[in-house]
Amino acid sequence: MSLLVTGSIGIDTIQAPAGKRDDVIGGSAVYFAFAASYFTPVRLVGVVGEDCPPDLLNVFKGRPIDTAGLEVRKGSKTFRWHGKYHDDVNVRDTVSVDLNVLGERGPKIPPQFVDSQYVFLANTHPALQKELLLSLSAPQLAVADTMDLWINIAKPELLELLKNVQGLVLNYEESKLLTGKTNLVAAAREVLKLGPKFCVIKKGEHGAMLCTSDDVFVMPAFPAENVIDPTGAGDSFAGGMMGYLSTQNNFAPATLKRAIAYGTVTASFTIEDFSLGGLAAATKEKIEERLVELKNAMSF
Amino acid sequence: MSLLVTGSIGIDTIQAPAGKRDDVIGGSAVYFAFAASYFTPVRLVGVVGEDCPPDLLNVFKGRPIDTAGLEVRKGSKTFRWHGKYHDDVNVRDTVSVDLNVLGERGPKIPPQFVDSQYVFLANTHPALQKELLLSLSAPQLAVADTMDLWINIAKPELLELLKNVQGLVLNYEESKLLTGKTNLVAAAREVLKLGPKFCVIKKGEHGAMLCTSDDVFVMPAFPAENVIDPTGAGDSFAGGMMGYLSTQNNFAPATLKRAIAYGTVTASFTIEDFSLGGLAAATKEKIEERLVELKNAMSF
Repeated sequence: MSLLVTGSIGIDTIQAPAGKRDDVIGGSAVYFAFAASYFTPVRLVGVVGEDCPPDLLNVFKGRPIDTAGLEVRKGSKTFRWHGKYHDDVNVRDTVSVDLNVLGERGPKIPPQFVDSQYVFLANTHPALQKELLLSLSAPQLAVADTMDLWINIAKPELLELLKNVQGLVLNYEESKLLTGKTNLVAAAREVLKLGPKFCVIKKGEHGAMLCTSDDVFVMPAFPAENVIDPTGAGDSFAGGMMGYLSTQNNFAPATLKRAIAYGTVTASFTIEDFSLGGLAAATKEKIEERLVELKNAMSF
Repeated sequence: MSLLVTGSIGIDTIQAPAGKRDDVIGGSAVYFAFAASYFTPVRLVGVVGEDCPPDLLNVFKGRPIDTAGLEVRKGSKTFRWHGKYHDDVNVRDTVSVDLNVLGERGPKIPPQFVDSQYVFLANTHPALQKELLLSLSAPQLAVADTMDLWINIAKPELLELLKNVQGLVLNYEESKLLTGKTNLVAAAREVLKLGPKFCVIKKGEHGAMLCTSDDVFVMPAFPAENVIDPTGAGDSFAGGMMGYLSTQNNFAPATLKRAIAYGTVTASFTIEDFSLGGLAAATKEKIEERLVELKNAMSF
């Protein structure tokens, strides 16, 4: 099945206890696409500025990622993010963020992508997410991510978007902000009242939870000891999850659960190196091996 | 097998979004003993002051908890703790704490308890924990809890204790403080270098992790929606874990894993009401039912 992702493509500078990397590839759509590409071909929709070194976009070479929807916009500059992780890499500060081209009009979905059946709307303004979604001809499963910024400044547009998606993926803190509930399960159930058929709450090093109308699924994070750079872990999680889902023909709870497990192990590769290094060192076989490891580490 | 617990017995005042309870029974040994008593008879060792209303200690009536080691000390006052939970009940402040009798000499282990084979040394000064442990004739499995206070002010004594126990149970933040490691798995592995054969790191609403020399076991919390009072959840977890372990004749990883699962579901009852109310409403059958629910909520 055809999986489309729209989201940010950026140039990151990352400081972590293990070192510093300047001007590396990053962005939600990049991590998502790379992660999902271990499961299924991916259609990427995003926009960079003319300053983006072509080398940076070479990361997609050799992966089943169709970049026909990647616009290089003349006169614009690429989104940039500079993050600094603490000695405890579970804590980070944003040193600087330059929206640049992400502050302009959104990208266009190429005609040959319009029939995409699976779509992931990575974090951006919910009005733009909705516009992109509505330009698809017959999506079967649309899942969105969001962030505190939009909950704070564009809640009506976000609530409108939520009526149009089947799934929402968000962080624990964001789920509290969106719903006013401080309990994980209560927050997820509240999200379901807003439209989505399922809600996934991400908790970083503490794993994730999936909630449907009938089912609650709790998933610890993969017990990783060697965490170099957690950037993109959440997007890789979503990529593994949606990548697996788009190879299935149903959204039954058992399928969703397995998708969360795949998302968890896929993200566990991302954090093992800077930028896309960890994810690039993965293979489908290694992902399957780690799924078994995770299953063993959870069985009793 | 005989399971002994030593730890605090206190009078708590608890403020939570759901209400306030004054002068209710609390303390680590109390929650532990009640939780463990669903699995096996428990021998309780602790001390209260003469101010302790006998009614408070009636909670043990009808449970297989031998209170021969419960000393009511003349001229002393009972340990008191007053905690206030935020609207997010995962966050709490200590309003006041009065060590009272806990600041005096420790309790004595009655002669008929000296042959206890399983022992849980709930949180107290590590020198006292060691003294109590050494007064047992032939413990097969000794597990200790500790807290930041002792890591900060009595680290040499704590390190000495750790050479004498098979297991250590502690909070995530405490594990970081003790080992200097900020990664969960790395911290647990570091604890194993200090003596224990296994380490359990508790993460409250995010579950727990078990580490042995060969194995890592990750366990989410039971997905509870109705959290009234989390006081004693960690001690109830330890009680369920040790209660189950003491009915087994081995400490193989599979046994330890199942023990963690029992600890998790036992604690899930504690948080459903104030003080011992939640735990008192449990039964062994309900615990078994919830174990199946937990297994389902984790299976993929």
